[in-house]
Order: sequence, then structure tokens, then C-alpha cells
Amino acid sequence: MSEHLDLEGWSCPMPLRDHPQVVMGHGGGGALSADLVEHLLLPAYGDDGGVLAQLGDAAVLGINGGRIAMSTDSFVVRPRFFPGGNVGDLAVNGTVNDVAMTGARPLHLAVGMVLEEGLQLAELDVISRTMGRAARRAGVGIVTGDTKVVDSGHGDGVYITTTGIGVIDPGVDLGPHRVRPGDAVIVSGPVALHGIAVMSVREGLEFGSQIETDCAPLNGLVAALLASGTDVHMLRDPTRGGVAATLNEIAKSSRTGVSIEERAVPVPDAVRAACGFLGLDPLYVANEGKLVAFVAPEHAELALATMHAHEFGVGAVRIGTVVEEHPGVVVARTGIGGTRVVDLPLAEQLPRIC
Amino acid sequence: MSEHLDLEGWSCPMPLRDHPQVVMGHGGGGALSADLVEHLLLPAYGDDGGVLAQLGDAAVLGINGGRIAMSTDSFVVRPRFFPGGNVGDLAVNGTVNDVAMTGARPLHLAVGMVLEEGLQLAELDVISRTMGRAARRAGVGIVTGDTKVVDSGHGDGVYITTTGIGVIDPGVDLGPHRVRPGDAVIVSGPVALHGIAVMSVREGLEFGSQIETDCAPLNGLVAALLASGTDVHMLRDPTRGGVAATLNEIAKSSRTGVSIEERAVPVPDAVRAACGFLGLDPLYVANEGKLVAFVAPEHAELALATMHAHEFGVGAVRIGTVVEEHPGVVVARTGIGGTRVVDLPLAEQLPRIC
Repeated sequence: MSEHLDLEGWSCPMPLRDHPQVVMGHGGGGALSADLVEHLLLPAYGDDGGVLAQLGDAAVLGINGGRIAMSTDSFVVRPRFFPGGNVGDLAVNGTVNDVAMTGARPLHLAVGMVLEEGLQLAELDVISRTMGRAARRAGVGIVTGDTKVVDSGHGDGVYITTTGIGVIDPGVDLGPHRVRPGDAVIVSGPVALHGIAVMSVREGLEFGSQIETDCAPLNGLVAALLASGTDVHMLRDPTRGGVAATLNEIAKSSRTGVSIEERAVPVPDAVRAACGFLGLDPLYVANEGKLVAFVAPEHAELALATMHAHEFGVGAVRIGTVVEEHPGVVVARTGIGGTRVVDLPLAEQLPRIC
Repeated sequence: MSEHLDLEGWSCPMPLRDHPQVVMGHGGGGALSADLVEHLLLPAYGDDGGVLAQLGDAAVLGINGGRIAMSTDSFVVRPRFFPGGNVGDLAVNGTVNDVAMTGARPLHLAVGMVLEEGLQLAELDVISRTMGRAARRAGVGIVTGDTKVVDSGHGDGVYITTTGIGVIDPGVDLGPHRVRPGDAVIVSGPVALHGIAVMSVREGLEFGSQIETDCAPLNGLVAALLASGTDVHMLRDPTRGGVAATLNEIAKSSRTGVSIEERAVPVPDAVRAACGFLGLDPLYVANEGKLVAFVAPEHAELALATMHAHEFGVGAVRIGTVVEEHPGVVVARTGIGGTRVVDLPLAEQLPRIC
């Protein structure tokens, strides 16, 4: 069908090259997702201005003499309701956070819904009210939308695509170009809660105490960090692919190495137990209310103190440092004193968690 | 599940009130769609600023001291390829046009894709390249995106949600508040092509000559109209629900009446024949490359001349006039001299045409 598609250079396993088709991993935020973007979507869209090729979770654009950030995300989480939230607050917070990670103040959201015929209107009502509440909590307005319906058997209740825009104030400049060896790497709280919360209800698992999603809007925390005077170099929310995928992307895009202390990464006991049971590495499990901050070394304490004073940063800890060695590679010092390379996963270990 | 949902005041047929669930018509752009927005989504989102309640196809927002328009649309057309186009150019042009109808210059697009496991990568490549070409043709950049994958049997190949933003230049002021009795109502060319093109391939129909979609970017035509000095009061692209739904929406939101000459509405012979065969009224069939313009009466000729000079307006004709009588109601003078009310359809006659 296409004369252009050349699978040379893709990470995909060999069988895929003979019968190239979309697999779950192409949406998983790992190496397969990166393949799809780099080898198919980018050449197809024909990015000329270089904005798309930045491959951030949001684009930074000049508008009316200032800068805005724009980000879009489609949410297909399964099931739609899980401990601590549903697809509605996920769709609002996920995009609010992607916009906020550029240092922007998120202002407006657009909502596109694809509904499956037969969805209960009462359920749609609950999801939509959750979105309204989440938007108010984050201080953004839902300003426009579109709703389509597909035949029963061609959807999964509701898919929600949210697009957010926000204003980047003068002087704010975050991104991989600002990451330097010596930077402190900080995570804003315990990891892997969202992925495990979704997985537990999907698989009908019980882990003693119920594990809830960490889904939350992070724009207030970002604003507090910027207002504190902390020299923040880069922010990113570790969603699909978890902290491991996020650190890998930053190491590659900033051409620096990242070294973390595995024991320093905060993992709640119940999450660690669930990960052990499921055979998952918490570093690779998705979060929906956490950020990873790269800050100037002399501001690490200020950043931590600022985060600890905020409701969504009370559990913040420093987990590592940017190094000159091994650019593009993330290395973890393990509990027993060894080191291991923390790779970009091929795909999310848990598909459809967001 | 929801204590809030009250079906009093909905247009939906009685059986739905007992077992309220999503039906195809809720995505059809007619009265059922309006119900969903007015009675469920608006109260749920809790619009406070009044932006969402404008219910236009795009929101007008203040950003950095100027104005921008923002619009989002999800595309679920079935089949994905049809005479003259595919879901890719539809997704680009549909959103470019919604932004342009505010008088804005569309600049940036965000693309969210929900892919179904098993989709051929070669087909995704063709669709994505079509999007890239359509974006270049419209002069917009695809600046950010997101891709999710759902299990086989939970999608339909590819659903695309595009969100566009554009800048509204100072002095440009379009909208229902500017529509006045006496305004000329102009359509930019022959109607009902898109809906019939999609329907013909879906139903395996042959109408002698192949009918192709009219899918096209209209931002250039809008720019030409504004540059011509025409006093344009309002623009809208008659997509789902066709010219009939668009005129009804404008009549209601502007609290004026609209009177059209049915014989003046340009319908190609092949389209009229297909509509007759399928039992469809061309006034209700979707377009993807046409606009309806409301212009000051003394500028009707200037508007027509300007449109005739543009590749996407060569077939422009005046089809009617805004009247003081019957506010909120659209009336057509029929070929035999009678009149009929042109109602808002309950739903699109052809589901999933965009």
C-alpha cells in the first residue's frame, strides 16, 4: 500500500518486519512507540520547523508575541474506573501535566470523545462530572469539544482525547538543552502507584491494602518550584514506561548520562509487593501524579523543601545525578553495590494503563 | 450510577428514557447531539466563563494580549478510504476549517491517534503522509501528537483527534451576534458531496460517475473574503447534519430567521440522483470543503465575486436571506412555490461520515 515504508532501523522484533502491523507496544511509550514516531510519523508529517522533532510531550509555540505550550493525549485506559479515579480525571490531569512540564501555566482544555454505542449515559455523566471537577481543581477551563459515536464492538465505552494550551511566562526556559552534569535528579514522590492500581482491578488482584492511582494535577507544584527561585533545568512526568523511560528520554535528548541510586527511589511497600507478585519493575510502571525534576546542584535542597511544602510533593526525594560519563545512558546503583543499565523498555509492561 | 442525570427536556425518543444509553445519533450533529451537549456535558463540565456555552465549533480565547481560536474534532469515518480522500486529510481539513470559521488564521495542529492492534503499518503510513500533505497545503504545522493502541476488536483501524489553534487578527469579529435581518446567505459551492462519496463506497453503490468528497482547507478562502473588505458577519462549515443543521444552529444562536430558496442550493446532478436513490435530502448531507457565509446585504456581490476567484469558492451562490420573522427557524421556498420548515435533524442520516 505504501512505497515509502522501510523497516530498516526499527527496533521491532523480526516477525513484525515481514508482516508489519500495529501491535500493543506501539502505544506503550517504549522503544516500539519511539520507532513509530521516528520512522513513520515524523517523516510522514514532514516536520519542517523542527517543533515536532523536539519530541517532547508538549510543543512550545510563539503566539501573539509570547510563548504557549500545546499538548495532546488520547486516553484509552481499561477498565475506565479504577481505585482512586477514572478515565475522566486521568484525561484532564494527564494533559494539564504535559503542558505544565514545559513550565507553562495550563489554561484551556479541548475534549474529543469517541463513545461506543450502548454506553450508559449515567456512566458518561459520572466521567464527564469527574472531568469538570478535575478541570476546576487544576484551574483550567474546558473550552471546546467534539463527540463522535462508533458502532458497538468498535470502541471500548469511551476514548477521550484532551488537548491543552498554557502560557509560558517570560524568563521560564526548561528543556533538555539546560540539563548539565551535576544536576540533581529529584522525583516528587512514591512511584508506580497508577500502573499497579489499574492492573490490580483489571486482573482482579487483592494486595491487602488497596493501592490507589496517584493521578493529580501538577501545575501548582511546578508553579511553586518556579516561584521559589529554584534553577529548574527540566521537568517531565513519568507516565507510560515509568521513571525508566523518562530518564532514558532525557539522557538521550540532553546527551548526558543519568546515574541513580536504586534504593533511593521511593516505592511503597504494597506497590513493591504487587510488583514482585506481577513480575514488574517499579521503575517501569506508569505514574500520573509525579514529576521528575532536573535542578542545578546548588538548588537541590531548595527544590526539595519547596516540593515538601506542596500537597503533591510531600514525598519528594533526590534519586540521582546527571553525569558526563555514558551520555544517553541511565545507570542504577543497586542495593548490593553493583550497577546496571536501566534500558528504555521495548513497550509498556502494562498496556492500556492511560 | 449517577444521581444527576435527568432526562426531562431531552429530544430523545421515549424508549431511550427508560434505558438511557449512547446511540449512534448522539454523534450525528443533530438534535440528539445537541441534547448530549446541553443536558449532560455542559452541566458536567461546569462551564463558568461562558466560553464553552457558546457552542461554536471553536472557542475564542484571549492569549498573550491577543485572541486565538481553538477547536478539536475526532474523526471516525468508515471506511477510512473513500473517493477523493481518506481519514487523514479529513482530520486535518476538518479542524483547519473549524478554526478558520472564527476568522482565525490556523497555525498549529495537534494529532491524537487511537490505533487498533493489527492495523497495517503501510496503511497508517499512507494516512499519515496524507495528513502531512494536507497540513502543508493548508499552511499549518503538526506540532505535537500522541498515539495509543487498543486491542483488536476495540477500535476500527484508526481514530484521529485533531486540535487546531490559530490567531484572530485585530478587527476581525465574526459570530451569531453579528447576524442581522437582511444579511445574504451564501454557500461556497455544491453541497452533499462528502456524505454521498462516503456512503457510496460503504454501500458498494455505483452512480455512473464517481462522486468524490469535497474535503478541502477553507482558510485561504476565508482569508480572501476578509481581505476583500466584505463585511462578513458569520461563517460556518456545514459538516455533520449538512446545510440544514448549520442554518438551524445559526438561526437559533443569532435569534433570527433564515429563509432560503430551495432551488438555489447547488446540488450536482449525480448527487441529486444518489440522494433520490438513497432517500436522502441533500440539505442534510455532510460537506467537508464548503462554508456558509452570512454577509451584509450591500456586500453580497463583493463576497460572491471574491469567492468565485478562489479555487474553493468557484461554485458559490446566494441561497437565501436573514429575516426578522420566525426567529430560530429556517424556512425553504420550494420549487413549486410553497414553503416548508427545514428542521434540525434528530441525527445525521449517515452515521460515521467524519
